[in-house]
Amino acid sequence: MRFSADALAMRPSPIRRFASQINDPGIISFAGGVPNPETFPAEALALAASRAARERSAETLQYGPTAGFPALRERIASRLSASGIATDVSDVHLTTGSQQALDLIARVLVDPGDVVVVESPAYVGALACFRARSADFLAVSRDAESIDIESLGSAVRRLRASGRQVRVLYTIPNFQNPSGWTLSRAGRDALLAAAAELDLFVIEDDPYGEVWFDAPPPPPLAARDAERVAYLGSFSKTLAAGLRTGFVRGPRELLAKIELAKQAADLCSSSLDQWTLVYYWEANDYDAHVAGVRSFYAARKRVLLASIREEWPAAIPVSDPAGGLFCWGRLPEGADAGEILERALEEKKVAFIPGLPFFPDESPSARRFFRLTFAKESPERMREGVRRLASIFGSPS
Amino acid sequence: MRFSADALAMRPSPIRRFASQINDPGIISFAGGVPNPETFPAEALALAASRAARERSAETLQYGPTAGFPALRERIASRLSASGIATDVSDVHLTTGSQQALDLIARVLVDPGDVVVVESPAYVGALACFRARSADFLAVSRDAESIDIESLGSAVRRLRASGRQVRVLYTIPNFQNPSGWTLSRAGRDALLAAAAELDLFVIEDDPYGEVWFDAPPPPPLAARDAERVAYLGSFSKTLAAGLRTGFVRGPRELLAKIELAKQAADLCSSSLDQWTLVYYWEANDYDAHVAGVRSFYAARKRVLLASIREEWPAAIPVSDPAGGLFCWGRLPEGADAGEILERALEEKKVAFIPGLPFFPDESPSARRFFRLTFAKESPERMREGVRRLASIFGSPS
Repeated sequence: MRFSADALAMRPSPIRRFASQINDPGIISFAGGVPNPETFPAEALALAASRAARERSAETLQYGPTAGFPALRERIASRLSASGIATDVSDVHLTTGSQQALDLIARVLVDPGDVVVVESPAYVGALACFRARSADFLAVSRDAESIDIESLGSAVRRLRASGRQVRVLYTIPNFQNPSGWTLSRAGRDALLAAAAELDLFVIEDDPYGEVWFDAPPPPPLAARDAERVAYLGSFSKTLAAGLRTGFVRGPRELLAKIELAKQAADLCSSSLDQWTLVYYWEANDYDAHVAGVRSFYAARKRVLLASIREEWPAAIPVSDPAGGLFCWGRLPEGADAGEILERALEEKKVAFIPGLPFFPDESPSARRFFRLTFAKESPERMREGVRRLASIFGSPS
Repeated sequence: MRFSADALAMRPSPIRRFASQINDPGIISFAGGVPNPETFPAEALALAASRAARERSAETLQYGPTAGFPALRERIASRLSASGIATDVSDVHLTTGSQQALDLIARVLVDPGDVVVVESPAYVGALACFRARSADFLAVSRDAESIDIESLGSAVRRLRASGRQVRVLYTIPNFQNPSGWTLSRAGRDALLAAAAELDLFVIEDDPYGEVWFDAPPPPPLAARDAERVAYLGSFSKTLAAGLRTGFVRGPRELLAKIELAKQAADLCSSSLDQWTLVYYWEANDYDAHVAGVRSFYAARKRVLLASIREEWPAAIPVSDPAGGLFCWGRLPEGADAGEILERALEEKKVAFIPGLPFFPDESPSARRFFRLTFAKESPERMREGVRRLASIFGSPS
């Protein structure tokens, strides 16, 4: 069978490759990237699903509008407006999870051979969308507060001078997957200034923004430049990941193309999922629920970090995120997280995700990094897992 | 904003363009292509959704496997096996409606500039997927029983000789949208023989196959050549279109690429939708339900056709489908269905879909055709609609 060039450029998700270990109860898992089901308001969502299916069957069981049901888009528009991004219902387009928003944007903005500016490290699911368009990457280093604007300008100009198209920059500003890092105000200023100067369109992916621990993150990029930024949101981390209902807020010219692309891609997202969210919101205090989700993950993160500080050597620093689901660790120079994972799985029955696939250019120095999630295991099992890894990593010096 | 070449090749759905007329209760509509919500088992599905969300919240509210939950894929595999396509659970991949299966196959098999063999007329949603890949079309005439195999071979050879890639043939064998026509056994034999001779991979799209009226259609193409055919199915016409749960049954090599493409496209389809179907099937007699759906549409079709035979001139023949949702009409030579639709809407408050966009090459002779659905209106309103159109079309001679 002969496949398309795009198909040949696709790669399996490095996380889904670990699925069997992640789901093996005999293994303590810091791998995986899914929210903890204890945070899902299961009973309220079951009631909402049941009411939606019963009272709204003409809508929930029928094809819906490609852009999503207005009742849901209005709720999202109000929440965005309240968060500082002035948004009308027609500025919002529903998608099958925010992953689909990424994919549709890649389809309408990226041509084969284009160069997409991505953070290094970056979310692997975004890299997958761009690879599926046969795009190349310009990787810009990200640190705890900013992306490396210095190197960006000259690199973009060099690529353009050699005839390459560079039109899109992709970022997760808040509690990034995989690093847990958050762009500071100054980091956001610098990013927006560089994007304007270089005429780059920005994809602001914000699946974790509502899951902050002590204080909300700085205002979103889209609040500052709504014409240059597509803002992607999701309820996967605050309500339920299985209701595939994400959204993109962006310039209407872009949304019009996204609507065409989505007509071809799947006609519309699940009507039942959309109305389940509408009914849930009508009957429940979502803000109170999200506050509970924040406390849940904040407590889990404190346990993991406290345990790591007690058990691991200072030579293995781990990021202390202000929200989200992930910490980012760094092994001493020359160490290989992939090799250590093999030992950890075999000898200690502990799993995490090696950092390599998060680096778009997969440079050898990337082998030092690894991602931990505090979303899955109980406090007790996290402590036990950290202790077990300490016997590989060595104790605090 | 600069869009990709694929985005510039995308076109709005000609059906969705008529959405406001289709949904205007003041208009009698033979337009639209959606199933009648009276055929949805709303109460049983509401119960299934509620039970799925409550008893299976760990699965329904969480991300699911990209290929779909095995519990659902097993049911589909058994049904396919029973229908003559020997199918194991790993031969089935879930998709967000069968539309997504089409789209993912286009992504993994079609390169920009490829030529895709399509029927003429063809389903516009499939044309949209191939256009979104910047593909061109080789249109093969379809009639009531077959596609024009004679012209296919020489046309494919000519295109290949000129350096074009021609790898895929797309067809709806049963109760086709828009024509209502069904490939006969001989038509299927000829199609499969031509595909084998020309080494074309066949996409067999079968959203209407279970909605037959007097007798089931001939065996599916995939039952005859499972390695050369991807079989696409859906529950949109038999259970509920809003549960976006379609599937593709195909060679495993193809499914492996589809899984990669779907990881990028949306990670997974709605978990709640999938488990709602599983719970529905556990508690209900689906075969009895589908039998009811068949009777419903069969009765509606009889009303429409009887009324047309009484009211319209013989110079305007309308196809008499053996299943599905659509009839296909032909105006006298030189007439333009688009112009007549404008009159029908304005003077008679009746809507239908002009045939032009269903013809991949949009030849002028295509303007004679029009599509009618008998899925939407009550028998009384269908009779009234036919009468109103008769005053434009003229009476039986």
